[in-house]
Amino acid sequence: MPVNLLAPEAHTLLPVKGVQLGFAKAHVRKADRKDVLVIKLSPGSHVAGVFTQNRFCAAPVVLCKEHLDLPEPHEIRALLVNTGNANAGTGEEGLQRARQTCTALAELLTCAPQQILPFSTGVILEPLPVDKVIAGLPDCIANLSADNWLNAAEAIMTTDIVAKGVSRQLSLNGKTVTITGIAKGSGMIHPNMATMLGYVATDAAINQAALEGMIHYAVNRSFNCITVDGDTSTNDSLIFIASGQSGAAEINDESADYVALRDALTEVATLLAQAIVRDGEGATKFMTINVQGGKDEAECRKVAYAIAHSPLIKTAFFASDPNLGRILAAIGYAGVHDLDVNTLKLYLGDVLVAEHGGRAVSYEEAQGAAVMKEPEITVRVDLARGAAAVTIWTCDFSYDYVKINADYRS
Amino acid sequence: MPVNLLAPEAHTLLPVKGVQLGFAKAHVRKADRKDVLVIKLSPGSHVAGVFTQNRFCAAPVVLCKEHLDLPEPHEIRALLVNTGNANAGTGEEGLQRARQTCTALAELLTCAPQQILPFSTGVILEPLPVDKVIAGLPDCIANLSADNWLNAAEAIMTTDIVAKGVSRQLSLNGKTVTITGIAKGSGMIHPNMATMLGYVATDAAINQAALEGMIHYAVNRSFNCITVDGDTSTNDSLIFIASGQSGAAEINDESADYVALRDALTEVATLLAQAIVRDGEGATKFMTINVQGGKDEAECRKVAYAIAHSPLIKTAFFASDPNLGRILAAIGYAGVHDLDVNTLKLYLGDVLVAEHGGRAVSYEEAQGAAVMKEPEITVRVDLARGAAAVTIWTCDFSYDYVKINADYRS
Repeated sequence: MPVNLLAPEAHTLLPVKGVQLGFAKAHVRKADRKDVLVIKLSPGSHVAGVFTQNRFCAAPVVLCKEHLDLPEPHEIRALLVNTGNANAGTGEEGLQRARQTCTALAELLTCAPQQILPFSTGVILEPLPVDKVIAGLPDCIANLSADNWLNAAEAIMTTDIVAKGVSRQLSLNGKTVTITGIAKGSGMIHPNMATMLGYVATDAAINQAALEGMIHYAVNRSFNCITVDGDTSTNDSLIFIASGQSGAAEINDESADYVALRDALTEVATLLAQAIVRDGEGATKFMTINVQGGKDEAECRKVAYAIAHSPLIKTAFFASDPNLGRILAAIGYAGVHDLDVNTLKLYLGDVLVAEHGGRAVSYEEAQGAAVMKEPEITVRVDLARGAAAVTIWTCDFSYDYVKINADYRS
Repeated sequence: MPVNLLAPEAHTLLPVKGVQLGFAKAHVRKADRKDVLVIKLSPGSHVAGVFTQNRFCAAPVVLCKEHLDLPEPHEIRALLVNTGNANAGTGEEGLQRARQTCTALAELLTCAPQQILPFSTGVILEPLPVDKVIAGLPDCIANLSADNWLNAAEAIMTTDIVAKGVSRQLSLNGKTVTITGIAKGSGMIHPNMATMLGYVATDAAINQAALEGMIHYAVNRSFNCITVDGDTSTNDSLIFIASGQSGAAEINDESADYVALRDALTEVATLLAQAIVRDGEGATKFMTINVQGGKDEAECRKVAYAIAHSPLIKTAFFASDPNLGRILAAIGYAGVHDLDVNTLKLYLGDVLVAEHGGRAVSYEEAQGAAVMKEPEITVRVDLARGAAAVTIWTCDFSYDYVKINADYRS
């Protein structure tokens, strides 16, 4: 069951001026579920994206990069998402099929195929059923609406249990600006650029350079800080959209409101990223891993991910077992070669667990057991050798993780 | 259930001249099980060891290195192993307790404490019950025998289901030389120097330099090529013993028989290492991952371990599901940044599965499904960009892995 994660109510996902969403049940893989989504953008929108670094990146990721890299005044006019098939590991044929879907949607919207960004998620290594996707497009166009964010969040789900979306509003110079984001993802989650699929739209006006700066800032503090199983997907994509329809002045790198807007976008991205972990396949615990006192961020990340990826630690958390020796072992093999284990400190919640290379004298098992019973647990490591710090989020490893992934294709 | 792994019969583990083994039920953690082992060596034996690179290495590992590093004519006279407690993450107090066990055994054997090598395996971060270990030593001494190899293999088990041991004989210049090895290990298995615990003894005479060359050669082709869960233990230790009691001439780096003996020791080490994977926690499949055509061994290892550590791939193998896209994804995120996915080839068993960046035209799902039903499966990746190759062994990821590790301490 997802950890402290409820589906958003339809009314809590605020419309974003200049952004319309339409969906269809196109039977891409399963009957009677929303599986194709179109996000239509008003002219003048700016779009920025970050994508998986997997060498086997999917055909739609290749096309997204190609279309985003075209020089201005080229504008993106719509996003097209299908679930049920990832169109990854599909070679040249896969690229052609992705292009076909762009061409079909471009004809319906009277624009060029290069103004469409395609996205796919689902099974890898199988041909995209392109006819089904295209057959679903008229339905998507027919129900385009600014109020469809919850339907959109549902349309991009795969093994997700709960739809993921969040909205924020802020005031920029007297004008109200809205940000709404949705995301999907539950397994194969260890984004190296972004997560499986995430879309964050605002009606603020942001120039292209500022928007790209904001997405890189946000992704490194949100989607690039989560892991479910250490598997970096072939399709990870995060898109920021600025429609410019709010009436607030355009933001550039020098604007007084740059930081406020960047931080609001980062907050939305962080909540969406955490929602993916809360809905991690089989998750019963939400774990925050905070590593501080490092010489640099890189070594903090090594230690944090060694803890977050250890199946022994993740199963111990599933069992609510304060088997803290497994955490010490992971710190020890994280690859920080000159680490002094006698000076670091390990905390579980607020409880000091280990210091001086062993169990803290003050530690009692009952303290650890009490923390482990909580659904949300913070593991804190103080490396005590510098000022760098990193926080990442992950979940535990349960019977259901095995069940979900042993059954996924059947 | 262990994959194609039967416990050795007592008579198949051959005595090694100059090596005696004694055991006790000392109640270190559980009642009524062999949990303390003494391996007594005849004077003149040479001993070499390789150990975990985990920064939180256990107290007995620290002492082993200290005692092995003493200059000749210092001789190791006995090995002392306990299960039930790893004496790791125990700080200065842990070192003192490990020293106490060495001192106690040294008194019984009339030698110096520095002539004892201590080993511990079991729960981390808990104080070693040193009194129980020491109380078991007289029983160990009382039943010392050259015929106790199977008892010894049983005495070092923790979550192992099957005892692991193997013997080989070869003829060196008309003299029969015996090699017998035992090992334990099932979880927290991703040796970075050696596995949890492995002991290989021969009555061949081998000088110290040659023995150390052989252990490094063997470990890099055996224990350093296996993984169960990617967790590198705090206690990994592999020991080679050469008692010199066979009557064959001493082997040095220049000897004609060097290669034959080295290869026989490597074969014993490899079989023991594979036995650990076959008995991997919850294992139902034994997987051989062969990566060839790499520019160097390092990139072959990256790809092989990305496949071997992926929970998504391991659960798919558990389900006998030829979900090969997950393997492509792992190859893609392995960290070989200039990898061309269009030239590599992926085989499952002898079946060509993927080429030209996607599914092979000749591939049919039924072929993959047939291979996946086997208990032993080879995954072969041809990177097609060089001459380097690496083979590693791993197992699948099942409900029982979660069960074993969620329950281990209770």
